[in-house]
Amino acid sequence: MKLASLKHGRDGHLVIVSRDLETAVDAGDIAETMQDALDNWETVEPLLQARYDRLNTGKGDFFTFVPEVCAAPLPRAYQWLDGSAYINHVELVRKARNAEVPESFYVDPLMYQGASDTFIGPMDPIIAVSEDHGIDFEAEVVVITDDVPMNVSQAKAKDHIKLIMLVDDVSLRGLIPNELRKGFGFVHGKASSAFSPVAVTPDELGKSWRGSKVHLPLLVEYNEKPFGKTNAGKDMTFNFAKLVAHGAATRELCAGTIIGSGTVSNQDKDGGAGRKVEDGGLGYSCIAEIRMIETIKDGKPSTSFMKFGDRVSIEMNDKEGNSVFGKIDHFVEKYKKPKAKK
Amino acid sequence: MKLASLKHGRDGHLVIVSRDLETAVDAGDIAETMQDALDNWETVEPLLQARYDRLNTGKGDFFTFVPEVCAAPLPRAYQWLDGSAYINHVELVRKARNAEVPESFYVDPLMYQGASDTFIGPMDPIIAVSEDHGIDFEAEVVVITDDVPMNVSQAKAKDHIKLIMLVDDVSLRGLIPNELRKGFGFVHGKASSAFSPVAVTPDELGKSWRGSKVHLPLLVEYNEKPFGKTNAGKDMTFNFAKLVAHGAATRELCAGTIIGSGTVSNQDKDGGAGRKVEDGGLGYSCIAEIRMIETIKDGKPSTSFMKFGDRVSIEMNDKEGNSVFGKIDHFVEKYKKPKAKK
Repeated sequence: MKLASLKHGRDGHLVIVSRDLETAVDAGDIAETMQDALDNWETVEPLLQARYDRLNTGKGDFFTFVPEVCAAPLPRAYQWLDGSAYINHVELVRKARNAEVPESFYVDPLMYQGASDTFIGPMDPIIAVSEDHGIDFEAEVVVITDDVPMNVSQAKAKDHIKLIMLVDDVSLRGLIPNELRKGFGFVHGKASSAFSPVAVTPDELGKSWRGSKVHLPLLVEYNEKPFGKTNAGKDMTFNFAKLVAHGAATRELCAGTIIGSGTVSNQDKDGGAGRKVEDGGLGYSCIAEIRMIETIKDGKPSTSFMKFGDRVSIEMNDKEGNSVFGKIDHFVEKYKKPKAKK
Repeated sequence: MKLASLKHGRDGHLVIVSRDLETAVDAGDIAETMQDALDNWETVEPLLQARYDRLNTGKGDFFTFVPEVCAAPLPRAYQWLDGSAYINHVELVRKARNAEVPESFYVDPLMYQGASDTFIGPMDPIIAVSEDHGIDFEAEVVVITDDVPMNVSQAKAKDHIKLIMLVDDVSLRGLIPNELRKGFGFVHGKASSAFSPVAVTPDELGKSWRGSKVHLPLLVEYNEKPFGKTNAGKDMTFNFAKLVAHGAATRELCAGTIIGSGTVSNQDKDGGAGRKVEDGGLGYSCIAEIRMIETIKDGKPSTSFMKFGDRVSIEMNDKEGNSVFGKIDHFVEKYKKPKAKK
């Protein structure tokens, strides 16, 4: 099943989207919003599924699905926890500054509590105050849970994963080192995240969803050129079940909790150093990573972070080459002060 | 104006509470939930205010206000940002481990993104998996904002403060050092926070709300004995306007964002070392602080963290001795695994 939220008020309007992302049908009578659906998942899931099945036959009422008018599937959420499950990414960060990765990082996931109050739609601009903040994208896979009990086991955590999406976890790299030093996580270092137009149930991925990982390449284009095609199923040290269990260790998680994988990063043939897509490599899911590679190789980075007007797109195709989640596709725009009310 | 959420579904049911906290009147026809009210504050505020004024005259329909059936004013929120505005608290932490407070801490607030998906009511138990986690309370003052634009000035941020409450920011001290080392903030180290039964508009505080600070003593009782009576208006290095502006530096804040002061902490007569209430001092707003004092004085702490069955209450009285927000009053309970569904 594929679901999306059309822009409408603060919380969007729920629609069901066909498997081929061509058409959609209203779901507002079943659940007004995505959060409503997740709050009552057991009851509404079969109703949504039946309508989805009918939509895919091409029968009944439907309309053309237009990602431009989509909000994030959850336009605002009660929780957004982002892990850092691809240790290769962390290893590169450390290698670039000649530091060791602590042993504990291989058993105890890094995870931060992200801002979830103002997500942006898949084609909404990345609004930034200054280019000096080091604007970067981070392409990731994320899951949405139902209610998760405190201290859940990893085995049971898996069953709480109800939907899967992609995210651009927009990062302001220049502001992060100061926040990391403070130890309290990110307040300034992360801008509003953008999500794929569509959230899908795990069964939509077929055999590509196994071991609580999505075994498909994550396609990133930067300024219309291929930038990354890492496989989200490879080199993921902590799978989503583990990340959910980690998030719930000392507290319940409310239905609609979004849990992210962290920047997808693969070890490339030459031992994790990584190569550009144009050089036959798997590329990168964020600019920071290519800058680390450059630093390791040349002593300093040569690729700059995003400027106003730069564009990034993030998408994932199934084995037949069809887009699973639709595309995040957006530009960086300079923040404009709101006009005073008259 | 004073507002509360009676326990009802996931988001509570909005009621208006009389100034003396004795009676309440339904507000569900104006706004079903507190979040609804905040989403439409400009429209609903005058309607709620008119009904509040009438309630205080004792005319019209009303019922007895019972804090036991209250959820947190926002039972779940889209954002909870907690600052650490009382640097005295940070100075004590550092002093206890012979470390310096970085200069930047006096100009750049510490703030973390907290979990906001499962808040607990004022009389709900603190559920913890293990006493070994170092269960502690943290008594704080918090504000709720309407929509705050990105990069707002401190001067303008003040006007976005719509409601004020108290919080018990329940902390699991034993899990925090590891999370601080990781730099990504708190996922395990904070349990679900409890809020005062009532949220009040700033005008309810009269002259005690000035300079974006609440100039009243915060009364903490631990196991029915006075534990703290620090003044929230004193030694607050960053006022709430500054904390709101800090939170919004690189992103919008959605209506219903809760921003906390951090543990209220005053310098006591003997130069910040602090004395117990029973010794004529101002006491403490958390156990960690008395443990730091003990460590500074005796080389090790002697007061233990909370055990199952321990009770803490947090309240604030106005100058006439009347409770402003009602009382947070709860016990620690051991987490019980939910029974499997049949």
